[in-house]
Amino acid sequence: MSSFDHRKYRPFAPIRKTDRRWPDQIIDRAPRWCSVDLRDGNQALIEPMNVVQKRRMFELLVKLGFKEIEVGFPAASQPDFDFVRSLITDNLIPDDVTIQVLTQARDELIARTFESLRGARRAIVHLYNSTSTVQREQVFGLDREGIRAIAVKGAHTVARLASERPETQWVFQYSPESFTGTELDYAVEVCDAVTAVWQPTPDNKVIINLPATVEMSTPNVFADQIEWVCDHIARRDSIIISLHTHNDRGCGVAAAELGVMAGADRIEGTLLGNGERTGNMDIVTMALNLYSQGVDPQLDLANMDEIVECVKACTQLPVHPRHPYAGELVFTAFSGSHQDAIRKCLARRQSDASWDVAYLPIDPEDLGRDYQAVIRINSQSGKGGVAYVLEREYGIQMPRWLQIEFSARVQQATEASATELNGEQIWHIFNETYLRPADSGARILGYQLSRDNGQDSLSATIHWQGETRSVTGTGTGVVGAFVDALNREMRETVLLVEYSEHALGATHGEGAEAISFVQMGINGSRYSGVAVSEDIVTASLNAILDALARGGSEARVAAA
Amino acid sequence: MSSFDHRKYRPFAPIRKTDRRWPDQIIDRAPRWCSVDLRDGNQALIEPMNVVQKRRMFELLVKLGFKEIEVGFPAASQPDFDFVRSLITDNLIPDDVTIQVLTQARDELIARTFESLRGARRAIVHLYNSTSTVQREQVFGLDREGIRAIAVKGAHTVARLASERPETQWVFQYSPESFTGTELDYAVEVCDAVTAVWQPTPDNKVIINLPATVEMSTPNVFADQIEWVCDHIARRDSIIISLHTHNDRGCGVAAAELGVMAGADRIEGTLLGNGERTGNMDIVTMALNLYSQGVDPQLDLANMDEIVECVKACTQLPVHPRHPYAGELVFTAFSGSHQDAIRKCLARRQSDASWDVAYLPIDPEDLGRDYQAVIRINSQSGKGGVAYVLEREYGIQMPRWLQIEFSARVQQATEASATELNGEQIWHIFNETYLRPADSGARILGYQLSRDNGQDSLSATIHWQGETRSVTGTGTGVVGAFVDALNREMRETVLLVEYSEHALGATHGEGAEAISFVQMGINGSRYSGVAVSEDIVTASLNAILDALARGGSEARVAAA
Repeated sequence: MSSFDHRKYRPFAPIRKTDRRWPDQIIDRAPRWCSVDLRDGNQALIEPMNVVQKRRMFELLVKLGFKEIEVGFPAASQPDFDFVRSLITDNLIPDDVTIQVLTQARDELIARTFESLRGARRAIVHLYNSTSTVQREQVFGLDREGIRAIAVKGAHTVARLASERPETQWVFQYSPESFTGTELDYAVEVCDAVTAVWQPTPDNKVIINLPATVEMSTPNVFADQIEWVCDHIARRDSIIISLHTHNDRGCGVAAAELGVMAGADRIEGTLLGNGERTGNMDIVTMALNLYSQGVDPQLDLANMDEIVECVKACTQLPVHPRHPYAGELVFTAFSGSHQDAIRKCLARRQSDASWDVAYLPIDPEDLGRDYQAVIRINSQSGKGGVAYVLEREYGIQMPRWLQIEFSARVQQATEASATELNGEQIWHIFNETYLRPADSGARILGYQLSRDNGQDSLSATIHWQGETRSVTGTGTGVVGAFVDALNREMRETVLLVEYSEHALGATHGEGAEAISFVQMGINGSRYSGVAVSEDIVTASLNAILDALARGGSEARVAAA
Repeated sequence: MSSFDHRKYRPFAPIRKTDRRWPDQIIDRAPRWCSVDLRDGNQALIEPMNVVQKRRMFELLVKLGFKEIEVGFPAASQPDFDFVRSLITDNLIPDDVTIQVLTQARDELIARTFESLRGARRAIVHLYNSTSTVQREQVFGLDREGIRAIAVKGAHTVARLASERPETQWVFQYSPESFTGTELDYAVEVCDAVTAVWQPTPDNKVIINLPATVEMSTPNVFADQIEWVCDHIARRDSIIISLHTHNDRGCGVAAAELGVMAGADRIEGTLLGNGERTGNMDIVTMALNLYSQGVDPQLDLANMDEIVECVKACTQLPVHPRHPYAGELVFTAFSGSHQDAIRKCLARRQSDASWDVAYLPIDPEDLGRDYQAVIRINSQSGKGGVAYVLEREYGIQMPRWLQIEFSARVQQATEASATELNGEQIWHIFNETYLRPADSGARILGYQLSRDNGQDSLSATIHWQGETRSVTGTGTGVVGAFVDALNREMRETVLLVEYSEHALGATHGEGAEAISFVQMGINGSRYSGVAVSEDIVTASLNAILDALARGGSEARVAAA
């Protein structure tokens, strides 16, 4: 029944190389980067970016230091066309940034592409057609000559339309799409035919981009392919060799790195690896790989949280907790021996010394992150971690985000006391940290709630900063309505970032039946709040007020 | 203010190699696999697996075909100790499977480790100590000789305790932990000192495991290291060279593949790459990389959904939508030209031919998955996708999972009609597909709901398969209580896989105020249900019944 059978696949045929040099190379400077987030990345989204998201992504890319940004496929998509126009007409492209647009090698599409670029100071026109055996035989039904003719005709059209528009500084780029499935000699033949039309010079280079449209081999074979092309392509001194790898075999970054060792000058990719199927290669990872070897990455990746937040918001895709350099768990140590080694290395480290800390390939602070030692108070004695103890002994099921935050508090306590903590001590820390906050005046005094037409309306009386106040709001659910009510009162916008709650047993004191955990966002910072009550609504609203009270002056009530 | 400065890092020093052979190798058979999901993977979890989760993971690993499974670090963790005991005493280890346990090279820990293995038929004792420069100098404060002495002493203790327990068939394994940060000659010196104690023979080999505890270089440098060790280690014919790579630079799979080309025999890793920080190398990806080259992976990965579900349930970590071979988007084509090429290749494909389909490196059906063409009905005309049209014109916000499913329906319709669809036509298809199901008799007639102690109790009257029935259940929230009630009636267990709902505007007919979307799991298959109602509770319960009705005979009510 199962069709799981390896015999239906053929091995990828590597090339025999007797003059391989790339394994002895070391990358000692960053390649030219080109972001394709707004084209290849955007094209692969369930819900493509809207104009607001596209602008936000473009602004981030510029801020990070990208000098070449592929912004769309204007001839294939009206939104892409409109976006290119708006970048130009609204003057959003800095002088040192060049936009790039993709077009198939078809005359009407090329013409439309040039139309989208009207008025651009400088632009890269990226021409492609598919050259692989499977595409020639099964999709286009053309032989080598027929496919090469498509590329040459496109190159002529690009050159002609560019010469008619001298007000823009034009750069030409050609991709033999599905390069990894193309015979190497034929790929070079097509590229040579294109550059024969474009006639680049060392002072006026063209870009030849070699896409691993599908990753088809181990990365060393890809590097062999790139080295072979670099050795055999005509006009090498007038060509920028660019790579565009995908991650089908989980080796997109490795292929790009080995490809640069093999002679490539330029890398196309996306932030955190968005793109078709398994994604494009991740420029953030490759750049930070260089950074961690002492190479200037030519990108400013110091604010990783900002990158992650923007990518998530624009792509509506998650970032995995174990994503290199960016995931929420990658600077976290769970193992006691790892924690011990890291602690010793950090303690001995002199501020001007090279970074050399066990288990941490990069200083988390460089990326605006913290090293987190998640303490398992007694994994050796079998009682499990902090979260486990609080759950087993006190029935408290901390949400994930609070576990991480709270374990750092416990870590501080263990370091201060230099002893192992028991369950009661951990409960004491939890209580002091969350349930008896310094500013404990904030609380709900009473509320009325009604639901109509799927919308909840809430009127509540709260004690807040020494005063009794009435607030009203509407929203989905009581929590939504309360956040709305608070936003009508606060100077700063407050956001509900995390929310969870559960019922409690009887061990928490008279009548305590429910516990709520919330994290509120105020002005870019986050504050946690926890509350227990005999009533789930009261617990939830008090947790929100608790979080805002921690926000302190950030969450001031507007003039009463 | 920012500490983002590459100058604090030193480049990794590669070794000069004049006899490099690995780049000419091709992997034509699978390495020996060893899963470390239950040790390295488990150790890196926010919430380590409980006994139920550990057993579930172990059973999956056995089912997939793993013959070597590292099941814990029994001397460091009481739960690990207990789990090893239970595997042995409950006879859970198949005859052809060998369990492996990790221990530091300290006498009391080694003794405790052997104690955990009492009664095992066969076991791998995996001894390690840390050998890198940073660990020697900053953590242990010992020189080369001191660190080597720790390994040798541990090896002696292991050999002695094993000889005292001849009832078990012992296999010895040694890891110079932090191998990638260790001078190569010193790593070999320590390994040789250990095997001098153990005296392996070609018929009774030991395992030398070389961990990239932290990934520190491009994968070709790691392969150079492995080839060097294979060339210089003593007793090579009596040693199984094993690799254990991590993913700090995003190249853990590449390093393992190149390392096998360089001479390694065995690979340690985890399913989908769980593990410390950025994770261990992903055995699923590497095995399917081999599979897609026509190499028997020696693992049965035909049921990818089962693997993903088990890993998610046991680790409580997500699987990224773009994870190679496993992510929900990796067999999805959004681009029209990709869809066109895939369609042509699939249409021409003969069932006995080798797989050669553009953009799909592997046949999704091999893994129990479908190829999905997500149609953007009119990305060319700027109106956006199916989901966008339904939201803008009809106020329906489809959840992600339903967008993908529904777009396939729309795709069928466009192919059938060969025209472009407008919003009204898409709404018609949505309506016919979800809101007027063939078996529309299933519906809720009335319900009573009460909440007490955080638990909801529901009594409902439903119309189901031509009958009126009363059901009762309890759970968290009305949906949980209803699913509980249904499970008391159904022959098969039904699971709520996905659930979302939102309020609607006035465009959907008299009094329709809310829409619910659910996906139910019955017997390994999934069925979607959608319902609208003036009442959110009714909408939710009807959506559940609608999904079950689609499940048809799978969801039969037990004898009435």
